Amino acid sequence: MQLISGTMATVMLGRTYDTQTCSVAGTLELVGERWTLLVVRDVFLGHRRFEELQRRLGIARNVLTARLNRLVEEGVLERRRYDAARERHEYHLTAKGLDLWPVIVALMSWGDHYVYPGRPPLVLVHRGCGGAVSDRRTCRECGAELEPGDVVAERGPGLVSA
Amino acid sequence: MQLISGTMATVMLGRTYDTQTCSVAGTLELVGERWTLLVVRDVFLGHRRFEELQRRLGIARNVLTARLNRLVEEGVLERRRYDAARERHEYHLTAKGLDLWPVIVALMSWGDHYVYPGRPPLVLVHRGCGGAVSDRRTCRECGAELEPGDVVAERGPGLVSA
Repeated sequence: MQLISGTMATVMLGRTYDTQTCSVAGTLELVGERWTLLVVRDVFLGHRRFEELQRRLGIARNVLTARLNRLVEEGVLERRRYDAARERHEYHLTAKGLDLWPVIVALMSWGDHYVYPGRPPLVLVHRGCGGAVSDRRTCRECGAELEPGDVVAERGPGLVSA
Repeated sequence: MQLISGTMATVMLGRTYDTQTCSVAGTLELVGERWTLLVVRDVFLGHRRFEELQRRLGIARNVLTARLNRLVEEGVLERRRYDAARERHEYHLTAKGLDLWPVIVALMSWGDHYVYPGRPPLVLVHRGCGGAVSDRRTCRECGAELEPGDVVAERGPGLVSA
């Protein structure tokens, strides 16, 4: 990926990255905070409640609260009440949040290759035919272009018993 | 993407995210630091010299030095001397660094859709046939599965003249 034009350097000049006109920077402005993508990952994996997220991530409650509030404000997650009596909520991905799936898969694929080579902790599988999921999010068996709902995450060889 | 097994919560429990057995966390351990992915993005765009990166990103020199050193140590970038007399270097992506391309494209695609809808700052184009690049990194014209070397980044409608 190289620029045809050499003038980009001038155009993209900015004091801080949030003022740069760039879709990578724009996305990181929201999901680049420490923990944010791990919260999103956990909600993708079906962990939707504050206590569960806090226990899994092991982060300070106020930090988790801040991350969840920001994700709700930005329309990535929505809060749904599941226990009116105790005013408890679950967090669900919106369409905007589900569209972060390619980011999660790309980070995961790189980590599978370079951080846990040969022993991925999780393996993504096409729900329809059981095929492995490629890093282009297609099924290696049937070739289908996959969306989050088409895929299940299974324990991989890198997840030794606790 | 949902887990078949409910036992993951136990297995992945960890005090901090760097101790979690997870490829997403493992990747973020390296590229999740503020600025790191923007440095990688800029090197993908052909900006390889310290002064140029520093001017484009507008970050403190010591922070940029730390990010570049870490990326070199981790084998994502390599330092190549281009001026022996003045001991000046350029940074190039290694194979490991080039494999971060899917992460950059995924972040960019999301930002194009949600941060700059209808006016992407950059447009990725298949060098071979001029087709647009899909978020699965295939050519929308000819269907080829694309690698970084197959793609050029052009100014998009979101980049108004400076």
